[in-house]
Amino acid sequence: MQYALKIQTPDEKGLIAKITSILFEFDLNILKNDEFVEREENIFFMRSEFVGECDIAKLHDRICTILPKVARVEIQKIQKRKIVILCTKENHCLGDLLIRYDSGELNADILAVISNYKDLEPLVQKFNIPFVCVSSENMQREAHEQKVLEVLNNYVFDYMVLAKYMRILTPKFVSAYEGKIINIHHSFLPAFIGANPYKQAYNRGVKIIGATAHFVNNELDEGPIIYQDIIKINHALTWKEMQKNGRDVEKIVLAKALNLALEERIFVYKNKTIVF
Amino acid sequence: MQYALKIQTPDEKGLIAKITSILFEFDLNILKNDEFVEREENIFFMRSEFVGECDIAKLHDRICTILPKVARVEIQKIQKRKIVILCTKENHCLGDLLIRYDSGELNADILAVISNYKDLEPLVQKFNIPFVCVSSENMQREAHEQKVLEVLNNYVFDYMVLAKYMRILTPKFVSAYEGKIINIHHSFLPAFIGANPYKQAYNRGVKIIGATAHFVNNELDEGPIIYQDIIKINHALTWKEMQKNGRDVEKIVLAKALNLALEERIFVYKNKTIVF
Amino acid sequence: MQYALKIQTPDEKGLIAKITSILFEFDLNILKNDEFVEREENIFFMRSEFVGECDIAKLHDRICTILPKVARVEIQKIQKRKIVILCTKENHCLGDLLIRYDSGELNADILAVISNYKDLEPLVQKFNIPFVCVSSENMQREAHEQKVLEVLNNYVFDYMVLAKYMRILTPKFVSAYEGKIINIHHSFLPAFIGANPYKQAYNRGVKIIGATAHFVNNELDEGPIIYQDIIKINHALTWKEMQKNGRDVEKIVLAKALNLALEERIFVYKNKTIVF
Amino acid sequence: MQYALKIQTPDEKGLIAKITSILFEFDLNILKNDEFVEREENIFFMRSEFVGECDIAKLHDRICTILPKVARVEIQKIQKRKIVILCTKENHCLGDLLIRYDSGELNADILAVISNYKDLEPLVQKFNIPFVCVSSENMQREAHEQKVLEVLNNYVFDYMVLAKYMRILTPKFVSAYEGKIINIHHSFLPAFIGANPYKQAYNRGVKIIGATAHFVNNELDEGPIIYQDIIKINHALTWKEMQKNGRDVEKIVLAKALNLALEERIFVYKNKTIVF
Repeated sequence: MQYALKIQTPDEKGLIAKITSILFEFDLNILKNDEFVEREENIFFMRSEFVGECDIAKLHDRICTILPKVARVEIQKIQKRKIVILCTKENHCLGDLLIRYDSGELNADILAVISNYKDLEPLVQKFNIPFVCVSSENMQREAHEQKVLEVLNNYVFDYMVLAKYMRILTPKFVSAYEGKIINIHHSFLPAFIGANPYKQAYNRGVKIIGATAHFVNNELDEGPIIYQDIIKINHALTWKEMQKNGRDVEKIVLAKALNLALEERIFVYKNKTIVF
Repeated sequence: MQYALKIQTPDEKGLIAKITSILFEFDLNILKNDEFVEREENIFFMRSEFVGECDIAKLHDRICTILPKVARVEIQKIQKRKIVILCTKENHCLGDLLIRYDSGELNADILAVISNYKDLEPLVQKFNIPFVCVSSENMQREAHEQKVLEVLNNYVFDYMVLAKYMRILTPKFVSAYEGKIINIHHSFLPAFIGANPYKQAYNRGVKIIGATAHFVNNELDEGPIIYQDIIKINHALTWKEMQKNGRDVEKIVLAKALNLALEERIFVYKNKTIVF
Repeated sequence: MQYALKIQTPDEKGLIAKITSILFEFDLNILKNDEFVEREENIFFMRSEFVGECDIAKLHDRICTILPKVARVEIQKIQKRKIVILCTKENHCLGDLLIRYDSGELNADILAVISNYKDLEPLVQKFNIPFVCVSSENMQREAHEQKVLEVLNNYVFDYMVLAKYMRILTPKFVSAYEGKIINIHHSFLPAFIGANPYKQAYNRGVKIIGATAHFVNNELDEGPIIYQDIIKINHALTWKEMQKNGRDVEKIVLAKALNLALEERIFVYKNKTIVF
Repeated sequence: MQYALKIQTPDEKGLIAKITSILFEFDLNILKNDEFVEREENIFFMRSEFVGECDIAKLHDRICTILPKVARVEIQKIQKRKIVILCTKENHCLGDLLIRYDSGELNADILAVISNYKDLEPLVQKFNIPFVCVSSENMQREAHEQKVLEVLNNYVFDYMVLAKYMRILTPKFVSAYEGKIINIHHSFLPAFIGANPYKQAYNRGVKIIGATAHFVNNELDEGPIIYQDIIKINHALTWKEMQKNGRDVEKIVLAKALNLALEERIFVYKNKTIVF
């Protein structure tokens, strides 16, 4: 069995030796080790991927004993995770995840797809995944979200993927799933926050367009960034053509970010990510 | 002799035929032709690169006769241009241009380098180019700019290159050289406008950093963008390391943009560029 | 109605004027015009995208009259094309095309998917597209190809897309569909021709991996290249991980190349492409 | 003082714990730790960057005692290195290094520049660096190399940088400086080995061009690759234009690779590099 250990603790001399000695003592074999020290506040982050027979509770206790000031100790089996996907009308990000799911490449089960429109129902049903439409028509934001939350309550999941879900979430919604919501925004943030970034990009006359996958927090498009990429464009593209070209970046960026989360490679610290 | 013809005119059917027929009539041989129609206001842009014996004034007249509503007709020999460079303390953009100049690759003569500090004087002098230091110490912005303008008045140049000149220009200065000032900003605009974009990028936790070459207008870092590029980074970089890595993008982006200007490949229309 | 005109003819002065004058005479409005002169043999290539009421046969005749030495005149409506897809077991390139097809983004109807294995049948059937398995088990290459050709004979299509079809085609097969077969090869050609390019890349220790979409001719992986792209990698990737990461490049490169073909943007000249 | 420790040893459980415990025991503070296990032969590689007061000989002994099978233990101060540069006529790679040297960004002293032509002498002299021309005119390869070796014998250096040195080296020359010679080849290897890769690229009709920095061994352009990058191109570029555009990739790729070497981040294992 393969595990990921994630530790966050105040930096001090000898931390790697201490932690890896415990793993050795537990007869575990490290496959990959990554560390980072945040220098502003001297916080040490470490992710260790190891194999062996592991009593998670015992290992957890032992680490906490050796590192009395440790802020975070997470030990998780690297195995299939569970996700739900929220989307609206565009099929490219959702479809990309469905195809990865279909081949078994996606290291997750998709429990359900929830949308505020019915457009993507036929696509989702092809893959025998529950599709739930929660229309927002004639509803206030809070009331609509309440209904979405009710649907989400039926599922126990590790991550919620906003695969071009074109609704702004309220703080209440976000706080219910803090650190679990991954969004794809169709610009290289922090540029072009908010509605229709391609139109904004067109109006500004930029020569690159991009996409940003990030965890959602209570500031619109300001959550911790996981992954970003861009493509070069020129003056000849209308904003509709930017949108069309941008979709390929969006779907790849979202899939990469989700994959990093599924493999437990991400720490969130303040408003940033540390990605190992 | 090789020429670049640049035309901007309201769009109508048959424009390419009309214009290229005139060139044929003048016995000129088109090497490269590019057109673009801006669809919001239906403006036709065309750049034609041709060879032959060309009476510029006659050709100009003929085009204006055939296209009575034409907004711009520019016919220029493609030949070495003249530039001045403004810089402050960092040597990478300046140095990159000097090396291109030294090999003859840069299609321009560098008439002078002007700086608000003396740091780069020894480097510039190696290449036998006049270096003028106009210190801004204990001076108000307008007074300092006045002195820089006086120095600039000694030179007749096609473009002024701000090769990491770390001063904000006043509208008066900009209007004196409208459409001639090319700046390199060390971020992928419109993100991180203003001072210390790498610190801003570090604080935001972005996964890419970049650079933008643009014409300078009266809005800080909001002039028409000529060229942009980025590199991928991760959490491990301090802002000083971002800055160090970013320099390679900055210098290449600036050199590319300058080269596009020197070859007369750029139209500015509203706040955007059309680059052929 | 929108059309694409493609012309290839020996270069001479005034060609653009002559051709665009004919379009003007036919009352057609050019949206986009691209030209290129191959300098080694002085061949002029031009693609003109225009709108209007067009009598294709008349326009064709007129052009041939004005350009008696013209080597190629093609005038085609820009409209949905017809394609067939060949694949083997991997679903990422096929799946990417199916998702684009499902949203209507793909400018083509997929008439059938043919494979030498049954693995992808369930995926294809979800989209109500005929799937034909032509197993190659216990068959010689020629006999197997003969059976594939028989299946292909049931369809009239513009392009055949090899979406990771892991079989080498014989000259007989290729010549039956010359200029119509687009393949994706999982390396940046001409590096790593032939079997298992990721293993070759791993063994060589490269720091980039890539993909190449090209027209198929009778030399293995040596046909005219349409589009290529790469991603950066490091020493830590096994060849299986290179393969997994490479899939995202493969599918985007193939889709882009197919799209260029569907929009009639490609000329093949000798062993190269000119892509407008 | 800052140090880099590089260890290569057969993999076994507990290696990181053992090694980092020694560093802790020596009261050294690890800044950055990287490990990699080559799975085909189970070789463990580790690089540790640490600060503190270090008795290098004692630390070396201690590690060898704890790891009796260790294949490599290198402990080096991270400080300015010494390099010599070989070049021919093109100034872009050399010039880029000179500008970095001039600002102090390059973490090395340039002891001398050696060339088979005089073209770059004026440029090198500007920077007060010894320039030695060893003309190869009318000389056989071995005789010319003998003369170059004699010049090199005057200098004690860490790395020899071939900054577009357009001569093939004999095995005798290479073996005299094994693992110390870094070359820049103007293609994305293994494509376009040998003479004039841009012409080869032009003839093949590729849509990307690139550059590869590698250690030199006895197979032409087949040494361990350190870093590679590419740019996208299209059909319109002549091979001369590819060469011009490619220069920007070449110089950045070479500088990055040299920097990795200067910071002792590279292991060579068989014909590959592990770069931390």
